[in-house]
Amino acid sequence: MIHNEKYPSQVLQDAVEAISSLPGVGSRSALRLALHLLRQPSENIHQFARAVDRLAEDVKYCSTCMMISDGDTCSICADKTRDHGTICVVENVRDVMNIEATGQYHGVYHVLGGIISPINGIGPSDITIRELVERVAGAQGKDIEVILALSGDVEGETTSFYIYRQLEKYGVKVSTLARGLGFGDDLEYADSLTLGRSIVNRQIFKP
Amino acid sequence: MIHNEKYPSQVLQDAVEAISSLPGVGSRSALRLALHLLRQPSENIHQFARAVDRLAEDVKYCSTCMMISDGDTCSICADKTRDHGTICVVENVRDVMNIEATGQYHGVYHVLGGIISPINGIGPSDITIRELVERVAGAQGKDIEVILALSGDVEGETTSFYIYRQLEKYGVKVSTLARGLGFGDDLEYADSLTLGRSIVNRQIFKP
Repeated sequence: MIHNEKYPSQVLQDAVEAISSLPGVGSRSALRLALHLLRQPSENIHQFARAVDRLAEDVKYCSTCMMISDGDTCSICADKTRDHGTICVVENVRDVMNIEATGQYHGVYHVLGGIISPINGIGPSDITIRELVERVAGAQGKDIEVILALSGDVEGETTSFYIYRQLEKYGVKVSTLARGLGFGDDLEYADSLTLGRSIVNRQIFKP
Repeated sequence: MIHNEKYPSQVLQDAVEAISSLPGVGSRSALRLALHLLRQPSENIHQFARAVDRLAEDVKYCSTCMMISDGDTCSICADKTRDHGTICVVENVRDVMNIEATGQYHGVYHVLGGIISPINGIGPSDITIRELVERVAGAQGKDIEVILALSGDVEGETTSFYIYRQLEKYGVKVSTLARGLGFGDDLEYADSLTLGRSIVNRQIFKP
């Protein structure tokens, strides 16, 4: 046998190695999952493999907002009932899905596909900032608001600041997410930075 | 759009649904894994899909011991240096791998592919007991030992007893795994059944 004696079959071993390449999946879990798949009818296994395989070629990106899409324009950008003058800038696809899940936002998005991170070697040209600037420049004269919905960490702040600088000359309104205590948060357990900011940025009480 | 509005793409949704069909993988983890795959080069995605797809057709079972194998005979049954007169009966493929990992066993195996479980509708004819009996019957005259290495629960005990009854008439030696305190176990935390058995079945002290 050429293969590692640990596995009784090369085919099984290949499947376990593929599955354990996924983040957070160790080789024991991968073996459990592979043996689970092995117990399924062939057609289910083929269907699983096809569904994954199609990720390679059949996922497109919206040419306007860079969101994952089935075609050239995503369903959000194609939706005429949404406010196309409000562009929410997010790091990734999941952020769009999370904001959509709130049901509170009716504008459109711009997916950066990453965040400026010198430590990870990601600079402004590695993410879709240029596309955002072109999009804003192309809309000049219209009433545009760009919401920077990035993380509150150093990388997020750096990226927000960089984008803000790039957009300044177009005279668009640039906003950012409200920071403060979460709904239902206990004062006792709030970190002092958040608590301090939420006092400084206090809002009119609207019961 | 025909698809669920929760996902920005039908292709992504199909992949998430396939991945979340795996045991212990929820839809949030499945989304995370699908987006991870999406970020990989196409060739890696194809390779992943192929590795899984091959589970459907290319995994064989050893005609002797029913273990997963690349061919008609598994590497253990094909190994002439092993003791083919000692057959260790286990529930599944993982048990073989676990026993092999101990490096303490040099006989061969018989994989039942399940355990007798009336509550799950699994009877003696649903697992490979008939094949085991035929194997033992075919080896009559030789010095055969069958080790029943099944779980210590009711289903395991039932299955062991059923197999024991089936093998009785062939006059083979039937043994079972030693039960007792685990190595390094603390007496204080041992359950009383295990502790009681380990006193009754005490062994000669061999320092």
